[in-house]
Amino acid sequence: MKIGFVGLGGMGQGMVGQLLEAGHDVTVWNRSKAPVEKLEAKGAKAAESPRKLAKSSEILITMLPDDSIVHGTLVESGALEALGKQAVHINMATVSVGFARGLAALHKRLGSHYVAAPVLGRPDVAAAGKLNIIAAGESAVVERITPILEAMGQKVWPVGEAPELANVVKIGANFMLASAIESMGEACALNEAHGVGRDTFLDIVTSTLFAAPAYQGYGKMIREASYTPAGMKMAWGLKDVGLAMQASHDSRVPLPFGGIVRDSLLEALARGDGDKDWAALAETPIGRAHLDKR
Amino acid sequence: MKIGFVGLGGMGQGMVGQLLEAGHDVTVWNRSKAPVEKLEAKGAKAAESPRKLAKSSEILITMLPDDSIVHGTLVESGALEALGKQAVHINMATVSVGFARGLAALHKRLGSHYVAAPVLGRPDVAAAGKLNIIAAGESAVVERITPILEAMGQKVWPVGEAPELANVVKIGANFMLASAIESMGEACALNEAHGVGRDTFLDIVTSTLFAAPAYQGYGKMIREASYTPAGMKMAWGLKDVGLAMQASHDSRVPLPFGGIVRDSLLEALARGDGDKDWAALAETPIGRAHLDKR
Amino acid sequence: MKIGFVGLGGMGQGMVGQLLEAGHDVTVWNRSKAPVEKLEAKGAKAAESPRKLAKSSEILITMLPDDSIVHGTLVESGALEALGKQAVHINMATVSVGFARGLAALHKRLGSHYVAAPVLGRPDVAAAGKLNIIAAGESAVVERITPILEAMGQKVWPVGEAPELANVVKIGANFMLASAIESMGEACALNEAHGVGRDTFLDIVTSTLFAAPAYQGYGKMIREASYTPAGMKMAWGLKDVGLAMQASHDSRVPLPFGGIVRDSLLEALARGDGDKDWAALAETPIGRAHLDKR
Amino acid sequence: MKIGFVGLGGMGQGMVGQLLEAGHDVTVWNRSKAPVEKLEAKGAKAAESPRKLAKSSEILITMLPDDSIVHGTLVESGALEALGKQAVHINMATVSVGFARGLAALHKRLGSHYVAAPVLGRPDVAAAGKLNIIAAGESAVVERITPILEAMGQKVWPVGEAPELANVVKIGANFMLASAIESMGEACALNEAHGVGRDTFLDIVTSTLFAAPAYQGYGKMIREASYTPAGMKMAWGLKDVGLAMQASHDSRVPLPFGGIVRDSLLEALARGDGDKDWAALAETPIGRAHLDKR
Repeated sequence: MKIGFVGLGGMGQGMVGQLLEAGHDVTVWNRSKAPVEKLEAKGAKAAESPRKLAKSSEILITMLPDDSIVHGTLVESGALEALGKQAVHINMATVSVGFARGLAALHKRLGSHYVAAPVLGRPDVAAAGKLNIIAAGESAVVERITPILEAMGQKVWPVGEAPELANVVKIGANFMLASAIESMGEACALNEAHGVGRDTFLDIVTSTLFAAPAYQGYGKMIREASYTPAGMKMAWGLKDVGLAMQASHDSRVPLPFGGIVRDSLLEALARGDGDKDWAALAETPIGRAHLDKR
Repeated sequence: MKIGFVGLGGMGQGMVGQLLEAGHDVTVWNRSKAPVEKLEAKGAKAAESPRKLAKSSEILITMLPDDSIVHGTLVESGALEALGKQAVHINMATVSVGFARGLAALHKRLGSHYVAAPVLGRPDVAAAGKLNIIAAGESAVVERITPILEAMGQKVWPVGEAPELANVVKIGANFMLASAIESMGEACALNEAHGVGRDTFLDIVTSTLFAAPAYQGYGKMIREASYTPAGMKMAWGLKDVGLAMQASHDSRVPLPFGGIVRDSLLEALARGDGDKDWAALAETPIGRAHLDKR
Repeated sequence: MKIGFVGLGGMGQGMVGQLLEAGHDVTVWNRSKAPVEKLEAKGAKAAESPRKLAKSSEILITMLPDDSIVHGTLVESGALEALGKQAVHINMATVSVGFARGLAALHKRLGSHYVAAPVLGRPDVAAAGKLNIIAAGESAVVERITPILEAMGQKVWPVGEAPELANVVKIGANFMLASAIESMGEACALNEAHGVGRDTFLDIVTSTLFAAPAYQGYGKMIREASYTPAGMKMAWGLKDVGLAMQASHDSRVPLPFGGIVRDSLLEALARGDGDKDWAALAETPIGRAHLDKR
Repeated sequence: MKIGFVGLGGMGQGMVGQLLEAGHDVTVWNRSKAPVEKLEAKGAKAAESPRKLAKSSEILITMLPDDSIVHGTLVESGALEALGKQAVHINMATVSVGFARGLAALHKRLGSHYVAAPVLGRPDVAAAGKLNIIAAGESAVVERITPILEAMGQKVWPVGEAPELANVVKIGANFMLASAIESMGEACALNEAHGVGRDTFLDIVTSTLFAAPAYQGYGKMIREASYTPAGMKMAWGLKDVGLAMQASHDSRVPLPFGGIVRDSLLEALARGDGDKDWAALAETPIGRAHLDKR
């Protein structure tokens, strides 16, 4: 099957690498050229434009940063209209619920198929083929593309027929990540103010009750207060929390932790931490304790 | 060494069971008699009063619910004054930072030794000897009693010389648990409002990013909306979050998640869920979404 | 001077009434016709379309509900392009900061003048000519139109040259209103749970420390738990708080009260209070106390 | 009637001044002597101890800072026991609900009468005799002492028979003050980040929607960023918000704004603003916006 892949950031590169290793025929497109060349060296082909790529793909996978870039690259460019009737567009990005609904409607009108398949895992996980992939779309189509998803991830989690359901799960998971980071930050502030170092405290909790990838990965950054290079920059963290707030607004679901983590991210950006990993939002509650003035 | 043990709730019974299995000489006291008889059957001896028990113990372990019960049982009763000069009091309960400081000062005045050793784990973990034990006190004393602690837990985590440090770590860990429960509740509300069942959502996140005991244990209760019998009742959850709020107040450390989880617990109690496990605080954000009215 | 007025809701009708009383020559347009006829009876003329009205007006005043309706009625319709070079558009609606900036840029390009002049006060205040009007735009232009604004309000408050400044002030004021309502709701919940009726409590505070229009007006609704007919519906309240959250997001200013009132409004909408005045957000904290279960 | 008055801080001095002007026979006691001498010059007599003062008073008025000082000065000292059977103790301080209940029970046991009569107003208002006084206690007793209260205030607000009801009203009013200050701080942060000075913004809102003593008094401090000398220090503000949080906890009433203002006060204390008026809590949200880094 001819696979097209659009969006070769840290995540996309690892995912295409896995597809190539599994022997798939992959043609790629990316705004900047360096990652294209890197993947050509591993056996990928390069496309001239998203539109041309769409035209020649049976499966079009996209891994783009946000609603507006997806819209520009696929909708405004005419790429989706160029897809064949039997083709499947697999959108693996974290987009908003509203945008996911709109894309699904557009595909319906065009006669092409749409599967939302956002992923859990950061670039190192993608490169290792260990992503968890949440998939939603017509079940026959999801079944058909599952082998391709499995080439990129350790497990596929189907969650229903309406594509936006996968996005809701992903948005909920990222909201929980943000909450986990905030709660580590607040607990560290409390411990440090009493004389227990964050290293000691986080070592204990992330080895025991919270011995999970989310806590151990972000916990390590917080323990070392080392947030560069950023796996996911602050602004993207704010985007993801923003998606949760938007979904909460549109569905009339209060989200008190959402308001708090939003504010911690805004304060981090306001103090100049925009280039750091979004885990640096943990420094907001720590900073508010003004430990240096004690 | 002669060990005295006061406080035979769900946690204490499991802990004494482990001490007996390890071959220790244990004498127990409890306000109600049933658990005493159960442990006598396993080889424990029974004391007439906390004071008499203290008098004859080289190591006095206490596992009592809160500051006020510890104060009544050990201080007002004269038990601590009856302890020998070389004896060690190991307080394994979750008490406040202020109370921990006061107890340490009292022991210093009396000439006895004091170690704070709160634990991570619920009754089933205690019964299996798999607790994680956070210990703080004079390092020579902590070292001396470590074999006893190891009989009750899988690992001992020393955190410093001042006993209250262990309590701060424990209070911080419980605050993180409450935050984890709240974040699951909010994320489930968001998912359910969009048509993704809590079972599906929690299965995914607790199998992947949040594959940790805290999330899996509490996540199971939330998935099944089954909160009885309570491992830890709502009121004790509120007590623990209250300890975090108190420590935050006394040390001037803002704790925004603390305010939110406090309110979720208060609302749970107000609506009549006082007999449920404190994990039912997750139903507060779900209830606020009024999903039944959609 | 020929004045055109677009948007004859509860606010707009009162404002046009004042302009007519002051002897101005006013032509109006509104989507539905009833209010147009009512004002024709008082001496207003009727226009066929926003575009035709714009073409013939020296001053074009608009009082429309939100960004999207302003955009549709004035921009997409071509009305703004039809304005003469010396004409002034006075936008008295509560729009977003971003949209205000966009409109200002559009007018600059078209060569027409733009003044943002949002108002403080509800329909009864507008009908009485007692509005407070916040105005921002080129100072010479603001000065020129001040007599017209004064015909509609008791006082004009100039706040600067950039039109969006007036919108920020208005958004901040509405955010403070929402906060005042929430704080009355929370304080009433606390009082009622202790046996002090909301009527007693609000009578005291709104007669003393909080003897201000905002507290007395909304306080009256809360005292009587009577929220219909709505002066401003819940959804518009959410829109206004949403504008504050958006401005907070875009300018990286944490807004913790914003998160709380947003959630109280969402919960009010979720429980089915969408047709009530937004003051009914005060019932959210009261409902959470489950006073009926005591 | 022989009036005894204990507690001559900024509030008490003004109140005794008013009683003397009204021609009452007042004997005073205070821990430090300077204010006693000042009032002796105006016609007051001085007592040797709270106990002796209680013994000779028909009406014993106390205006002390908090639960613990009231307890020490009146209960531990034996003063209350020295009161005659027909005597009335009027406690005008802001104490906790729980403590108010305890004092009422103690008086019942001793056979003396107890009225809680906390006040709204700061020292300048007390000196001018313009306080608002909230009174609760047996209605016959409240009626009997009303003329005395009226000598100190512009209006007496009876709220019921149980003394703690007056304290709940006062605690609720102070919670609303804290919320008003926080909301001004947040709205100023938002305005300043967009280029509208706090002076301009607060001038508008406190002249219009929020033209009330609470907003104008605190608004003036915020406009001038001038918080010394403190009318009410930060620590007393935290005490008052703490009373609201305690009452909320004990009565199971969630109080989300309470959590936020608590945190703003804690951050203010942590950054070293402990000597400022509690209105400086408004600087917390402003500081979080890091406007100096823009």
